[in-house]
Amino acid sequence: MRLLHHFPLSPYSRKVRLVLAEKRLPFEVLTERVWERREEYLRLNPAGTVPTLVEDSGLIVPDSGVICEYLDEAYPDTPLMGRTLAQRVEVRRLAAWFDTVFGQDVTRPLYGEKLFKRLAGRGNPDAALLRAGYANLRGHMEYLGWLAETRRCLAGSDLSLADFAAAAHISVLDFAGDIDWPKYPAAKEWYVRIKSRPSFRGLLADRVAGITPPSYYAELDF
Amino acid sequence: MRLLHHFPLSPYSRKVRLVLAEKRLPFEVLTERVWERREEYLRLNPAGTVPTLVEDSGLIVPDSGVICEYLDEAYPDTPLMGRTLAQRVEVRRLAAWFDTVFGQDVTRPLYGEKLFKRLAGRGNPDAALLRAGYANLRGHMEYLGWLAETRRCLAGSDLSLADFAAAAHISVLDFAGDIDWPKYPAAKEWYVRIKSRPSFRGLLADRVAGITPPSYYAELDF
Repeated sequence: MRLLHHFPLSPYSRKVRLVLAEKRLPFEVLTERVWERREEYLRLNPAGTVPTLVEDSGLIVPDSGVICEYLDEAYPDTPLMGRTLAQRVEVRRLAAWFDTVFGQDVTRPLYGEKLFKRLAGRGNPDAALLRAGYANLRGHMEYLGWLAETRRCLAGSDLSLADFAAAAHISVLDFAGDIDWPKYPAAKEWYVRIKSRPSFRGLLADRVAGITPPSYYAELDF
Repeated sequence: MRLLHHFPLSPYSRKVRLVLAEKRLPFEVLTERVWERREEYLRLNPAGTVPTLVEDSGLIVPDSGVICEYLDEAYPDTPLMGRTLAQRVEVRRLAAWFDTVFGQDVTRPLYGEKLFKRLAGRGNPDAALLRAGYANLRGHMEYLGWLAETRRCLAGSDLSLADFAAAAHISVLDFAGDIDWPKYPAAKEWYVRIKSRPSFRGLLADRVAGITPPSYYAELDF
């Protein structure tokens, strides 16, 4: 069976779980505690990051961006990268924006300081980083809201990797109770739609020892 | 004419210049001083990073990773992403490894502290970051040497984006005189081959006000 080495709250792992589920590709998961830097895992993926996908054929596919490109080429039935060249640019641009800019400005300081440090036993959150993360969150949620207001899906009229990359980051922040939803009605309307998809069920069922998400985390009419 | 908004010493800009030249696609360049965060540029690329490609058709393609995927789809004559699914995974894995792991561990601390700070008028290098960058450089150059020793090109037998992503980072470090070549004979042999390609000429001709590269920077038999 196809195996995904992942970490339940990693937004990059979550993006790949969503893409696999959207493409109806069955897979098992194995939790990798990346901070332990297991040698056996580093042989699969020298970068040491999650996720890494191992296909039944033995093909090892590390890096969430590489995995998503691979899955769309190997299993093109539910295309998630757009059709025309211009659409594909916009899908990839937004997926990269969430994984780099949003990730660095928001997910890394908030998830990194509040959840990851606790899980990895790395001490207390840095208050300055948390403040920076919350300040960046507001501006970036407004950009997300603007996209959600002006387009049916984030990269245009069709669901794409851009929606799943964005939803993966948002879902991690939501697990930590960090999103003040009443402030972002357009982003919320978009997130309700994505969250209601069957591919999202696995993410909503995630429970992590010692951390309780807010009650609305798994609700579809939060 | 196709226009690339770039910064001459940015490894991400250099990677795209190499790919455009390998594909024999004519282009003009315009230097963008990203630290000024020009509004007009942020409209082209909200992430504010270089490079951004603007096609004759008006299509705007930001983000070096997105640009390289776009160029290989739009101009497939000189394919740089590999042929089989497994080859494409390896090309993308290595290109991502150089742009993220190598970039964060080595290029950002060394180029960022020594050159970028000077160019952007942001003060003196942080000695601790420089030490970390040099320490990481050794391990990562050994990985590059191992790849160069066991394969004809970095991702296999054919030249690919992996070679150009790697050479772009190496070329920036080499401009700063940071690579002690006698220590890395296999990596050097690979770099001489890449550096000798016509696509590299533009990079070797780059001169940046106030910074003099070592004499061997532009030599092919250094």
